Amino acid sequence: MSKAKGTRLERELFHMFWTNSWGSIRVAGSGSTSLPAPDLLVGNSKRFLAIECKAGKEKRYIRRGQVEELVEFSTKFGAEPWIAVRFNNMGWYFLGVDKLQDTKGGNFVVDKEFCKLNGITFEDFIKE
Amino acid sequence: MSKAKGTRLERELFHMFWTNSWGSIRVAGSGSTSLPAPDLLVGNSKRFLAIECKAGKEKRYIRRGQVEELVEFSTKFGAEPWIAVRFNNMGWYFLGVDKLQDTKGGNFVVDKEFCKLNGITFEDFIKE
Repeated sequence: MSKAKGTRLERELFHMFWTNSWGSIRVAGSGSTSLPAPDLLVGNSKRFLAIECKAGKEKRYIRRGQVEELVEFSTKFGAEPWIAVRFNNMGWYFLGVDKLQDTKGGNFVVDKEFCKLNGITFEDFIKE
Repeated sequence: MSKAKGTRLERELFHMFWTNSWGSIRVAGSGSTSLPAPDLLVGNSKRFLAIECKAGKEKRYIRRGQVEELVEFSTKFGAEPWIAVRFNNMGWYFLGVDKLQDTKGGNFVVDKEFCKLNGITFEDFIKE
């Protein structure tokens, strides 16, 4: 998937939070600085979420180090760490970092079926 | 002051928070989207700060609308709104949004003397 499409989908989620009355920001240089940083940081004055966005066609690998950095940032800042996944022809699903599927190589993998079974839809997520 | 210098000073403050064990991010597209956004968002799991950075030689004007947007974002997200000011040959000073000096035109102005009298230094700020 192109980087532009990834950015477009990240913006989609950013706007979905605003539409539902959460404050939301996209993080500058996420993935490019040596310091840990999520893609989005959102809050509604009760909950604070650090979100790593992943998009793909059918399946998506996630490096273990990236998840560890998300947890590191979240602990320091004081936010809940979440992976938000968006596959073609499906809405966003939220996965807790303890809900990811290991690969043999020590990283993680998510696919459509896994999201449906283990993920939380955006609508349910913001209801919680 | 050049935009590049403003960005460099914003990065300086971003790093100062990390050095002192706060989680810190720079906001993407701050000032360029129609949605309110601070320059920095920092947290230490107890306090959450939305910060607008202002740098200058001796004096700096701040548009009222920008302060209102900072407050709007902060209320929605659940952060404290702060203006961080950095003048030449002086460290950072933090000013509460209710501590700003009005101009006749309905905006705000800060200068070195005003910061020394009404601002909080970085060192004192993170001790609070």
